[in-house]
Amino acid sequence: MKVLIVFAHPEKQSFNHSLLQAAVKRLEENGDEVKVSDLYKMKWKPVIDEDDFLNHENGTRLKIAASSASAYTEKQLTADVVAEQEKLAWADTVILQFPLWWFSMPAILKGWVDRVFACGYAYGVGPHDETHYGYRYGEGVMEGKRAFCIVTTGGSADHYSTRGINGSIDDVLFTINHGILFYPGFTVLPPLVTYRTDSRREEVFENAKKAVIERMDNIATLEPIHYRRQNFGDYTIPQMTLKEGLEEPGQTHFDIHIKKD
Amino acid sequence: MKVLIVFAHPEKQSFNHSLLQAAVKRLEENGDEVKVSDLYKMKWKPVIDEDDFLNHENGTRLKIAASSASAYTEKQLTADVVAEQEKLAWADTVILQFPLWWFSMPAILKGWVDRVFACGYAYGVGPHDETHYGYRYGEGVMEGKRAFCIVTTGGSADHYSTRGINGSIDDVLFTINHGILFYPGFTVLPPLVTYRTDSRREEVFENAKKAVIERMDNIATLEPIHYRRQNFGDYTIPQMTLKEGLEEPGQTHFDIHIKKD
Repeated sequence: MKVLIVFAHPEKQSFNHSLLQAAVKRLEENGDEVKVSDLYKMKWKPVIDEDDFLNHENGTRLKIAASSASAYTEKQLTADVVAEQEKLAWADTVILQFPLWWFSMPAILKGWVDRVFACGYAYGVGPHDETHYGYRYGEGVMEGKRAFCIVTTGGSADHYSTRGINGSIDDVLFTINHGILFYPGFTVLPPLVTYRTDSRREEVFENAKKAVIERMDNIATLEPIHYRRQNFGDYTIPQMTLKEGLEEPGQTHFDIHIKKD
Repeated sequence: MKVLIVFAHPEKQSFNHSLLQAAVKRLEENGDEVKVSDLYKMKWKPVIDEDDFLNHENGTRLKIAASSASAYTEKQLTADVVAEQEKLAWADTVILQFPLWWFSMPAILKGWVDRVFACGYAYGVGPHDETHYGYRYGEGVMEGKRAFCIVTTGGSADHYSTRGINGSIDDVLFTINHGILFYPGFTVLPPLVTYRTDSRREEVFENAKKAVIERMDNIATLEPIHYRRQNFGDYTIPQMTLKEGLEEPGQTHFDIHIKKD
Protein backbone atom coordinates (compact mmCIF):
# COMPACT_ATOMS: atom_id res chain seq x y z
CA MET A 1 0.00 0.00 0.00
CA LYS A 2 0.90 3.64 -0.37
CA VAL A 3 -0.47 5.40 2.68
CA LEU A 4 -0.79 9.14 3.25
CA ILE A 5 -1.47 10.16 6.85
CA VAL A 6 -2.71 13.72 7.31
CA PHE A 7 -1.96 14.48 10.94
CA ALA A 8 -3.26 17.40 12.99
CA HIS A 9 -1.88 17.75 16.50
CA PRO A 10 0.51 20.43 17.78
CA GLU A 11 2.44 18.31 20.28
CA LYS A 12 5.13 15.73 19.55
CA GLN A 13 4.77 14.19 23.00
CA SER A 14 1.02 13.76 22.63
CA PHE A 15 -1.14 10.66 22.72
CA ASN A 16 -1.97 11.36 19.09
CA HIS A 17 1.65 11.66 18.02
CA SER A 18 2.50 8.40 19.76
CA LEU A 19 -0.30 6.69 17.87
CA LEU A 20 1.01 8.20 14.64
CA GLN A 21 4.46 6.77 15.31
CA ALA A 22 2.97 3.34 16.03
CA ALA A 23 1.01 3.46 12.78
CA VAL A 24 4.00 4.50 10.66
CA LYS A 25 6.23 1.88 12.26
CA ARG A 26 3.75 -0.91 11.62
CA LEU A 27 3.12 0.10 8.03
CA GLU A 28 6.86 0.18 7.32
CA GLU A 29 7.32 -3.20 9.00
CA ASN A 30 4.57 -4.52 6.73
CA GLY A 31 6.43 -3.24 3.67
CA ASP A 32 4.00 -0.43 2.96
CA GLU A 33 5.14 3.02 1.83
CA VAL A 34 4.10 5.92 4.08
CA LYS A 35 4.01 9.68 3.72
CA VAL A 36 2.92 11.92 6.58
CA SER A 37 1.57 15.43 6.22
CA ASP A 38 2.18 16.68 9.76
CA LEU A 39 0.22 19.90 9.42
CA TYR A 40 1.48 21.68 12.54
CA LYS A 41 5.07 20.73 11.78
CA MET A 42 4.63 21.95 8.19
CA LYS A 43 3.12 25.20 9.50
CA TRP A 44 0.29 24.53 7.09
CA LYS A 45 -1.51 27.72 6.01
CA PRO A 46 -5.00 26.97 7.33
CA VAL A 47 -7.04 29.73 5.75
CA ILE A 48 -8.23 29.91 2.15
CA ASP A 49 -8.00 33.42 0.76
CA GLU A 50 -7.06 35.29 -2.41
CA ASP A 51 -3.40 34.31 -2.01
CA ASP A 52 -4.45 30.73 -2.79
CA PHE A 53 -5.11 31.51 -6.43
CA LEU A 54 -2.06 32.79 -8.28
CA ASN A 55 -4.16 33.96 -11.23
CA HIS A 56 -6.53 35.96 -9.01
CA GLU A 57 -6.22 39.68 -9.54
CA ASN A 58 -5.93 41.33 -6.13
CA GLY A 59 -8.81 43.63 -5.37
CA THR A 60 -11.27 41.91 -7.71
CA ARG A 61 -14.15 39.91 -6.25
CA LEU A 62 -13.06 36.55 -4.89
CA LYS A 63 -15.66 33.83 -5.49
CA ILE A 64 -14.12 30.84 -3.80
CA ALA A 65 -15.57 28.12 -6.05
CA ALA A 66 -15.01 29.99 -9.32
CA SER A 67 -11.54 31.24 -8.37
CA SER A 68 -10.56 27.79 -7.15
CA ALA A 69 -11.79 26.13 -10.37
CA SER A 70 -9.97 28.65 -12.51
CA ALA A 71 -6.73 28.28 -10.56
CA TYR A 72 -6.97 24.48 -10.65
CA THR A 73 -7.61 24.38 -14.41
CA GLU A 74 -4.85 26.87 -15.21
CA LYS A 75 -2.38 25.27 -12.79
CA GLN A 76 -2.32 28.39 -10.65
CA LEU A 77 -2.82 26.82 -7.24
CA THR A 78 -0.04 27.40 -4.72
CA ALA A 79 2.87 24.97 -4.41
CA ASP A 80 1.82 23.74 -0.95
CA VAL A 81 -1.64 22.78 -2.20
CA VAL A 82 -0.25 21.13 -5.34
CA ALA A 83 2.18 19.12 -3.19
CA GLU A 84 -0.74 17.74 -1.15
CA GLN A 85 -2.69 16.91 -4.31
CA GLU A 86 0.38 15.05 -5.59
CA LYS A 87 0.58 13.05 -2.36
CA LEU A 88 -3.12 12.22 -2.73
CA ALA A 89 -2.53 11.09 -6.32
CA TRP A 90 0.35 8.90 -5.11
CA ALA A 91 -1.58 7.30 -2.24
CA ASP A 92 -3.99 4.41 -2.44
CA THR A 93 -4.95 4.92 1.21
CA VAL A 94 -5.50 8.16 3.09
CA ILE A 95 -5.83 8.53 6.85
CA LEU A 96 -7.01 11.69 8.59
CA GLN A 97 -5.72 11.60 12.16
CA PHE A 98 -6.90 14.21 14.64
CA PRO A 99 -8.27 14.90 18.12
CA LEU A 100 -11.99 15.72 18.08
CA TRP A 101 -12.21 19.37 19.13
CA TRP A 102 -15.70 20.81 19.49
CA PHE A 103 -17.11 17.76 17.72
CA SER A 104 -15.11 18.33 14.55
CA MET A 105 -11.56 18.47 13.24
CA PRO A 106 -8.99 21.04 14.42
CA ALA A 107 -9.01 24.22 12.34
CA ILE A 108 -5.66 23.39 10.72
CA LEU A 109 -7.08 20.15 9.25
CA LYS A 110 -10.31 21.82 8.17
CA GLY A 111 -8.11 24.33 6.39
CA TRP A 112 -6.26 21.49 4.67
CA VAL A 113 -9.60 20.28 3.30
CA ASP A 114 -10.81 23.79 2.42
CA ARG A 115 -7.62 24.50 0.45
CA VAL A 116 -6.54 21.13 -1.02
CA PHE A 117 -10.00 19.93 -2.10
CA ALA A 118 -10.19 22.52 -4.88
CA CYS A 119 -13.12 23.13 -7.20
CA GLY A 120 -12.79 21.13 -10.40
CA TYR A 121 -10.68 18.64 -8.47
CA ALA A 122 -12.65 17.39 -5.46
CA TYR A 123 -15.97 19.15 -6.09
CA GLY A 124 -17.73 20.81 -9.01
CA VAL A 125 -16.55 18.02 -11.32
CA GLY A 126 -18.30 16.43 -14.30
CA PRO A 127 -21.60 16.87 -16.13
CA HIS A 128 -24.80 17.87 -14.35
CA ASP A 129 -27.60 16.37 -16.45
CA GLU A 130 -30.58 14.00 -16.08
CA THR A 131 -28.41 10.98 -15.32
CA HIS A 132 -25.51 12.55 -13.43
CA TYR A 133 -25.27 15.31 -10.87
CA GLY A 134 -21.53 15.75 -10.97
CA TYR A 135 -18.94 13.15 -10.11
CA ARG A 136 -19.39 13.00 -6.37
CA TYR A 137 -20.57 10.69 -3.60
CA GLY A 138 -18.98 7.54 -4.93
CA GLU A 139 -17.34 8.91 -8.07
CA GLY A 140 -14.55 11.42 -8.51
CA VAL A 141 -10.84 11.99 -8.25
CA MET A 142 -10.40 9.72 -5.22
CA GLU A 143 -12.21 6.71 -6.73
CA GLY A 144 -10.43 3.45 -5.98
CA LYS A 145 -8.65 4.88 -2.91
CA ARG A 146 -9.50 3.95 0.67
CA ALA A 147 -9.74 6.50 3.47
CA PHE A 148 -10.67 6.66 7.12
CA CYS A 149 -10.26 8.71 10.27
CA ILE A 150 -8.22 8.00 13.39
CA VAL A 151 -9.86 10.08 16.09
CA THR A 152 -9.31 10.70 19.79
CA THR A 153 -11.91 12.21 22.11
CA GLY A 154 -12.01 13.59 25.62
CA GLY A 155 -15.51 12.20 26.23
CA SER A 156 -16.31 8.56 26.94
CA ALA A 157 -17.78 5.99 24.57
CA ASP A 158 -21.07 6.30 26.47
CA HIS A 159 -21.21 10.02 25.72
CA TYR A 160 -20.93 9.15 22.02
CA SER A 161 -23.31 6.18 22.09
CA THR A 162 -26.71 6.10 20.40
CA ARG A 163 -28.34 7.74 23.42
CA GLY A 164 -25.28 9.73 24.46
CA ILE A 165 -25.55 13.48 24.93
CA ASN A 166 -22.88 14.28 22.32
CA GLY A 167 -24.71 12.32 19.64
CA SER A 168 -23.51 8.96 18.36
CA ILE A 169 -19.98 8.96 17.03
CA ASP A 170 -21.28 7.76 13.64
CA ASP A 171 -23.55 10.79 13.40
CA VAL A 172 -20.90 13.19 14.74
CA LEU A 173 -18.41 12.00 12.11
CA PHE A 174 -20.90 11.63 9.23
CA THR A 175 -20.17 15.01 7.65
CA ILE A 176 -16.49 14.06 7.58
CA ASN A 177 -16.81 10.42 6.48
CA HIS A 178 -19.58 11.01 3.98
CA GLY A 179 -19.26 14.74 3.26
CA ILE A 180 -15.48 15.05 2.99
CA LEU A 181 -14.22 11.52 2.20
CA PHE A 182 -17.01 9.77 0.26
CA TYR A 183 -17.90 12.97 -1.62
CA PRO A 184 -14.76 13.08 -3.82
CA GLY A 185 -14.91 9.32 -4.33
CA PHE A 186 -13.03 7.63 -1.49
CA THR A 187 -14.10 4.19 -0.30
CA VAL A 188 -14.56 4.95 3.41
CA LEU A 189 -13.60 2.56 6.18
CA PRO A 190 -15.11 2.83 9.68
CA PRO A 191 -13.27 5.34 11.87
CA LEU A 192 -10.87 4.16 14.57
CA VAL A 193 -11.87 6.05 17.72
CA THR A 194 -10.14 6.19 21.10
CA TYR A 195 -12.24 7.70 23.88
CA ARG A 196 -11.17 9.45 27.09
CA THR A 197 -7.58 9.99 26.05
CA ASP A 198 -7.10 12.51 28.85
CA SER A 199 -7.68 9.99 31.63
CA ARG A 200 -5.99 6.76 32.71
CA ARG A 201 -3.52 7.42 29.94
CA GLU A 202 -1.35 4.32 29.94
CA GLU A 203 -4.13 1.76 29.79
CA VAL A 204 -6.07 3.72 27.22
CA PHE A 205 -2.93 4.28 25.19
CA GLU A 206 -1.88 0.63 25.14
CA ASN A 207 -5.30 -0.42 23.91
CA ALA A 208 -5.36 2.34 21.34
CA LYS A 209 -1.91 1.39 20.10
CA LYS A 210 -3.01 -2.23 19.71
CA ALA A 211 -6.07 -1.13 17.79
CA VAL A 212 -4.00 1.10 15.50
CA ILE A 213 -1.53 -1.71 14.75
CA GLU A 214 -4.38 -4.11 14.03
CA ARG A 215 -5.99 -1.52 11.76
CA MET A 216 -2.77 -1.02 9.81
CA ASP A 217 -2.75 -4.77 9.13
CA ASN A 218 -6.40 -4.79 8.01
CA ILE A 219 -6.76 -1.70 5.84
CA ALA A 220 -6.92 -3.64 2.60
CA THR A 221 -9.42 -6.23 3.79
CA LEU A 222 -11.70 -4.29 6.14
CA GLU A 223 -15.32 -3.93 5.03
CA PRO A 224 -16.03 -0.30 4.09
CA ILE A 225 -19.10 1.72 5.05
CA HIS A 226 -21.64 1.05 2.29
CA TYR A 227 -22.64 4.60 1.47
CA ARG A 228 -25.07 4.77 -1.44
CA ARG A 229 -23.52 6.06 -4.63
CA GLN A 230 -25.27 9.14 -5.94
CA ASN A 231 -25.62 8.53 -9.66
CA PHE A 232 -26.66 4.90 -9.72
CA GLY A 233 -30.41 5.03 -9.29
CA ASP A 234 -30.98 5.52 -5.56
CA TYR A 235 -31.48 9.30 -5.74
CA THR A 236 -33.78 11.60 -7.69
CA ILE A 237 -31.94 14.09 -9.92
CA PRO A 238 -31.54 17.06 -9.44
CA GLN A 239 -33.25 17.01 -6.03
CA MET A 240 -30.74 14.38 -4.83
CA THR A 241 -33.25 12.91 -2.41
CA LEU A 242 -33.25 9.21 -1.60
CA LYS A 243 -36.06 7.49 -3.49
CA GLU A 244 -38.96 6.40 -1.29
CA GLY A 245 -38.80 2.94 0.20
CA LEU A 246 -35.06 2.35 -0.22
CA GLU A 247 -34.17 2.85 3.41
CA GLU A 248 -34.36 -0.04 5.85
CA PRO A 249 -36.76 -0.03 8.82
CA GLY A 250 -35.16 2.09 11.55
CA GLN A 251 -33.07 4.19 9.17
CA THR A 252 -34.33 7.76 9.51
CA HIS A 253 -31.47 10.26 9.48
CA PHE A 254 -27.89 10.22 8.12
CA ASP A 255 -28.08 6.42 8.14
CA ILE A 256 -30.55 6.30 5.20
CA HIS A 257 -27.48 6.91 3.03
CA ILE A 258 -25.94 3.61 4.10
CA LYS A 259 -26.99 0.40 2.38
CA LYS A 260 -27.56 -2.44 4.80
CA ASP A 261 -26.59 -5.89 3.59
CA MET B 1 -29.84 44.09 22.49
CA LYS B 2 -26.08 43.86 22.38
CA VAL B 3 -25.22 41.70 19.39
CA LEU B 4 -21.86 40.18 18.49
CA ILE B 5 -21.58 38.88 14.94
CA VAL B 6 -18.64 36.58 14.31
CA PHE B 7 -18.19 36.68 10.55
CA ALA B 8 -16.09 34.35 8.40
CA HIS B 9 -15.83 35.19 4.73
CA PRO B 10 -12.76 36.50 2.89
CA GLU B 11 -14.54 38.75 0.37
CA LYS B 12 -16.08 42.16 0.99
CA GLN B 13 -18.13 41.95 -2.20
CA SER B 14 -19.57 38.57 -1.30
CA PHE B 15 -23.15 37.50 -0.82
CA ASN B 16 -22.24 36.85 2.81
CA HIS B 17 -20.75 40.27 3.37
CA SER B 18 -23.82 41.93 1.85
CA LEU B 19 -26.01 39.99 4.27
CA LEU B 20 -23.75 41.07 7.11
CA GLN B 21 -24.18 44.71 6.13
CA ALA B 22 -27.96 44.29 5.97
CA ALA B 23 -27.99 42.73 9.43
CA VAL B 24 -25.83 45.43 11.00
CA LYS B 25 -27.88 48.20 9.38
CA ARG B 26 -31.16 46.77 10.61
CA LEU B 27 -29.91 46.23 14.15
CA GLU B 28 -28.63 49.80 14.33
CA GLU B 29 -31.92 51.13 12.95
CA ASN B 30 -33.67 49.16 15.68
CA GLY B 31 -31.49 50.82 18.32
CA ASP B 32 -29.46 47.71 19.06
CA GLU B 33 -25.72 47.83 19.67
CA VAL B 34 -23.59 45.74 17.33
CA LYS B 35 -20.00 44.51 17.34
CA VAL B 36 -18.58 42.51 14.44
CA SER B 37 -15.62 40.17 14.63
CA ASP B 38 -14.73 40.03 10.94
CA LEU B 39 -12.22 37.21 11.22
CA TYR B 40 -10.60 37.53 7.80
CA LYS B 41 -10.33 41.30 8.16
CA MET B 42 -8.82 40.87 11.63
CA LYS B 43 -6.35 38.31 10.23
CA TRP B 44 -7.50 36.06 13.05
CA LYS B 45 -4.88 33.49 14.06
CA PRO B 46 -6.78 30.32 13.31
CA VAL B 47 -4.58 27.67 14.85
CA ILE B 48 -4.29 26.84 18.53
CA ASP B 49 -0.70 26.09 19.54
CA GLU B 50 1.76 26.73 22.35
CA ASP B 51 1.85 30.45 21.56
CA ASP B 52 -1.73 30.64 22.82
CA PHE B 53 -0.69 30.13 26.43
CA LEU B 54 1.68 32.81 27.69
CA ASN B 55 2.56 30.75 30.77
CA HIS B 56 3.44 27.67 28.72
CA GLU B 57 7.11 26.87 28.81
CA ASN B 58 8.27 26.28 25.25
CA GLY B 59 9.49 22.77 24.66
CA THR B 60 7.48 21.20 27.48
CA ARG B 61 4.56 18.97 26.63
CA LEU B 62 1.51 20.90 25.48
CA LYS B 63 -1.74 19.35 26.69
CA ILE B 64 -4.36 21.55 25.10
CA ALA B 65 -7.04 21.25 27.79
CA ALA B 66 -4.66 21.53 30.75
CA SER B 67 -2.58 24.34 29.23
CA SER B 68 -5.72 26.19 28.23
CA ALA B 69 -7.22 25.87 31.73
CA SER B 70 -4.01 27.03 33.35
CA ALA B 71 -3.67 30.02 31.04
CA TYR B 72 -7.32 30.96 31.51
CA THR B 73 -7.09 30.76 35.30
CA GLU B 74 -3.84 32.68 35.48
CA LYS B 75 -4.94 35.28 32.92
CA GLN B 76 -2.24 34.15 30.52
CA LEU B 77 -4.34 33.83 27.37
CA THR B 78 -3.29 36.04 24.45
CA ALA B 79 -4.78 39.50 23.99
CA ASP B 80 -6.72 38.56 20.85
CA VAL B 81 -8.48 35.70 22.65
CA VAL B 82 -9.21 37.84 25.71
CA ALA B 83 -10.68 40.54 23.46
CA GLU B 84 -13.12 38.02 21.99
CA GLN B 85 -14.06 36.74 25.45
CA GLU B 86 -14.74 40.34 26.47
CA LYS B 87 -17.01 40.83 23.46
CA LEU B 88 -18.82 37.63 24.41
CA ALA B 89 -19.24 38.90 27.98
CA TRP B 90 -20.63 42.16 26.64
CA ALA B 91 -23.09 40.56 24.20
CA ASP B 92 -26.53 39.19 25.00
CA THR B 93 -26.81 37.78 21.49
CA VAL B 94 -24.16 36.05 19.39
CA ILE B 95 -24.42 35.26 15.69
CA LEU B 96 -22.00 33.00 13.83
CA GLN B 97 -22.21 33.89 10.14
CA PHE B 98 -20.43 31.73 7.58
CA PRO B 99 -20.64 29.87 4.29
CA LEU B 100 -20.95 26.11 4.75
CA TRP B 101 -17.70 24.66 3.38
CA TRP B 102 -17.43 20.88 3.34
CA PHE B 103 -20.48 20.65 5.59
CA SER B 104 -18.93 22.70 8.38
CA MET B 105 -17.58 26.13 9.19
CA PRO B 106 -14.55 27.65 7.42
CA ALA B 107 -11.26 26.86 9.16
CA ILE B 108 -10.84 30.43 10.39
CA LEU B 109 -14.11 30.25 12.34
CA LYS B 110 -13.35 26.78 13.67
CA GLY B 111 -10.08 28.27 14.88
CA TRP B 112 -11.99 31.06 16.63
CA VAL B 113 -13.94 28.41 18.54
CA ASP B 114 -10.86 26.26 19.22
CA ARG B 115 -8.98 29.26 20.66
CA VAL B 116 -11.63 31.45 22.31
CA PHE B 117 -13.65 28.67 23.96
CA ALA B 118 -10.89 27.96 26.46
CA CYS B 119 -10.86 25.22 29.08
CA GLY B 120 -12.26 26.46 32.39
CA TYR B 121 -14.22 29.05 30.45
CA ALA B 122 -16.40 27.28 27.87
CA TYR B 123 -15.63 23.66 28.77
CA GLY B 124 -14.18 21.77 31.69
CA VAL B 125 -16.17 23.95 34.11
CA GLY B 126 -17.80 23.08 37.41
CA PRO B 127 -18.10 20.01 39.62
CA HIS B 128 -18.35 16.50 38.22
CA ASP B 129 -20.33 14.51 40.82
CA GLU B 130 -23.49 12.40 41.04
CA THR B 131 -25.80 15.31 40.30
CA HIS B 132 -23.73 17.39 37.91
CA TYR B 133 -21.36 16.50 35.10
CA GLY B 134 -19.84 19.93 34.66
CA TYR B 135 -21.63 23.09 33.70
CA ARG B 136 -22.42 22.35 30.09
CA TYR B 137 -25.32 21.68 27.75
CA GLY B 138 -27.64 24.30 29.15
CA GLU B 139 -25.45 25.71 31.89
CA GLY B 140 -22.21 27.62 31.71
CA VAL B 141 -20.60 30.94 30.91
CA MET B 142 -23.03 31.76 28.08
CA GLU B 143 -26.20 31.13 30.10
CA GLY B 144 -28.85 33.74 29.45
CA LYS B 145 -27.42 34.69 26.06
CA ARG B 146 -29.01 33.80 22.73
CA ALA B 147 -27.05 32.54 19.75
CA PHE B 148 -27.66 31.25 16.27
CA CYS B 149 -26.01 30.68 12.89
CA ILE B 150 -26.51 32.52 9.62
CA VAL B 151 -25.38 30.06 6.96
CA THR B 152 -25.14 30.03 3.18
CA THR B 153 -24.79 26.89 1.10
CA GLY B 154 -24.00 26.01 -2.49
CA GLY B 155 -26.41 23.07 -2.50
CA SER B 156 -30.19 23.37 -2.73
CA ALA B 157 -32.74 23.00 0.07
CA ASP B 158 -33.68 19.60 -1.41
CA HIS B 159 -30.09 18.39 -1.01
CA TYR B 160 -30.34 19.30 2.70
CA SER B 161 -33.87 17.96 3.22
CA THR B 162 -34.72 14.93 5.36
CA ARG B 163 -34.04 12.57 2.43
CA GLY B 164 -31.39 14.77 0.81
CA ILE B 165 -28.00 13.29 0.02
CA ASN B 166 -26.10 15.83 2.15
CA GLY B 167 -28.15 14.95 5.22
CA SER B 168 -30.79 17.27 6.67
CA ILE B 169 -29.57 20.74 7.51
CA ASP B 170 -30.64 20.21 11.13
CA ASP B 171 -28.41 17.14 11.37
CA VAL B 172 -25.53 18.78 9.47
CA LEU B 173 -25.57 21.77 11.85
CA PHE B 174 -26.26 19.80 15.06
CA THR B 175 -22.64 19.60 16.18
CA ILE B 176 -22.45 23.39 15.85
CA ASN B 177 -25.84 24.32 17.33
CA HIS B 178 -25.76 21.75 20.12
CA GLY B 179 -22.04 20.98 20.41
CA ILE B 180 -20.58 24.49 20.15
CA LEU B 181 -23.44 26.85 21.11
CA PHE B 182 -25.66 24.94 23.56
CA TYR B 183 -22.64 23.30 25.22
CA PRO B 184 -21.32 26.46 26.97
CA GLY B 185 -24.85 27.54 27.84
CA PHE B 186 -26.28 29.56 24.96
CA THR B 187 -29.99 29.48 24.27
CA VAL B 188 -29.92 28.45 20.61
CA LEU B 189 -32.27 29.82 17.98
CA PRO B 190 -32.91 27.97 14.71
CA PRO B 191 -30.31 28.74 12.04
CA LEU B 192 -31.08 31.08 9.18
CA VAL B 193 -30.01 29.25 6.03
CA THR B 194 -29.83 30.50 2.45
CA TYR B 195 -29.39 27.78 -0.17
CA ARG B 196 -27.86 27.93 -3.66
CA THR B 197 -26.16 31.26 -3.16
CA ASP B 198 -24.01 30.69 -6.25
CA SER B 199 -26.93 30.63 -8.66
CA ARG B 200 -29.64 33.14 -9.62
CA ARG B 201 -27.90 35.52 -7.30
CA GLU B 202 -30.19 38.56 -7.29
CA GLU B 203 -33.44 36.74 -6.51
CA VAL B 204 -31.78 34.55 -3.91
CA PHE B 205 -30.05 37.54 -2.37
CA GLU B 206 -33.19 39.67 -2.11
CA ASN B 207 -35.03 36.86 -0.32
CA ALA B 208 -32.08 36.21 1.95
CA LYS B 209 -31.80 39.89 2.80
CA LYS B 210 -35.50 40.01 3.69
CA ALA B 211 -35.08 36.95 5.89
CA VAL B 212 -32.07 38.46 7.65
CA ILE B 213 -33.89 41.72 8.33
CA GLU B 214 -36.91 39.84 9.64
CA ARG B 215 -34.64 37.74 11.84
CA MET B 216 -32.94 40.83 13.29
CA ASP B 217 -36.41 42.07 14.33
CA ASN B 218 -37.35 38.74 15.92
CA ILE B 219 -34.24 37.63 17.80
CA ALA B 220 -35.70 38.41 21.23
CA THR B 221 -39.04 36.73 20.61
CA LEU B 222 -38.17 33.74 18.42
CA GLU B 223 -38.74 30.32 19.95
CA PRO B 224 -35.40 28.61 20.65
CA ILE B 225 -34.54 24.99 19.91
CA HIS B 226 -35.56 23.06 23.03
CA TYR B 227 -32.39 21.10 23.63
CA ARG B 228 -32.55 19.01 26.78
CA ARG B 229 -30.44 20.40 29.61
CA GLN B 230 -27.86 17.93 30.83
CA ASN B 231 -28.06 18.17 34.61
CA PHE B 232 -31.79 18.30 35.16
CA GLY B 233 -32.84 14.66 35.22
CA ASP B 234 -33.04 13.62 31.58
CA TYR B 235 -29.59 11.98 31.45
CA THR B 236 -27.84 9.30 33.46
CA ILE B 237 -24.64 10.47 35.18
CA PRO B 238 -21.78 9.90 34.37
CA GLN B 239 -22.79 7.96 31.24
CA MET B 240 -24.69 11.01 29.98
CA THR B 241 -27.14 8.88 28.06
CA LEU B 242 -30.74 9.93 27.62
CA LYS B 243 -32.93 7.99 30.02
CA GLU B 244 -35.14 5.36 28.37
CA GLY B 245 -38.54 6.45 27.21
CA LEU B 246 -37.96 10.21 27.18
CA GLU B 247 -37.70 10.54 23.43
CA GLU B 248 -40.82 11.01 21.34
CA PRO B 249 -41.90 8.45 18.73
CA GLY B 250 -39.83 9.05 15.61
CA GLN B 251 -36.89 10.60 17.47
CA THR B 252 -33.93 8.28 16.96
CA HIS B 253 -30.72 10.21 16.36
CA PHE B 254 -29.51 13.74 17.23
CA ASP B 255 -33.17 14.73 17.60
CA ILE B 256 -33.60 12.73 20.82
CA HIS B 257 -31.83 15.64 22.50
CA ILE B 258 -34.65 18.02 21.56
CA LYS B 259 -37.76 18.21 23.71
CA LYS B 260 -40.94 18.28 21.69
CA ASP B 261 -43.75 20.40 23.10
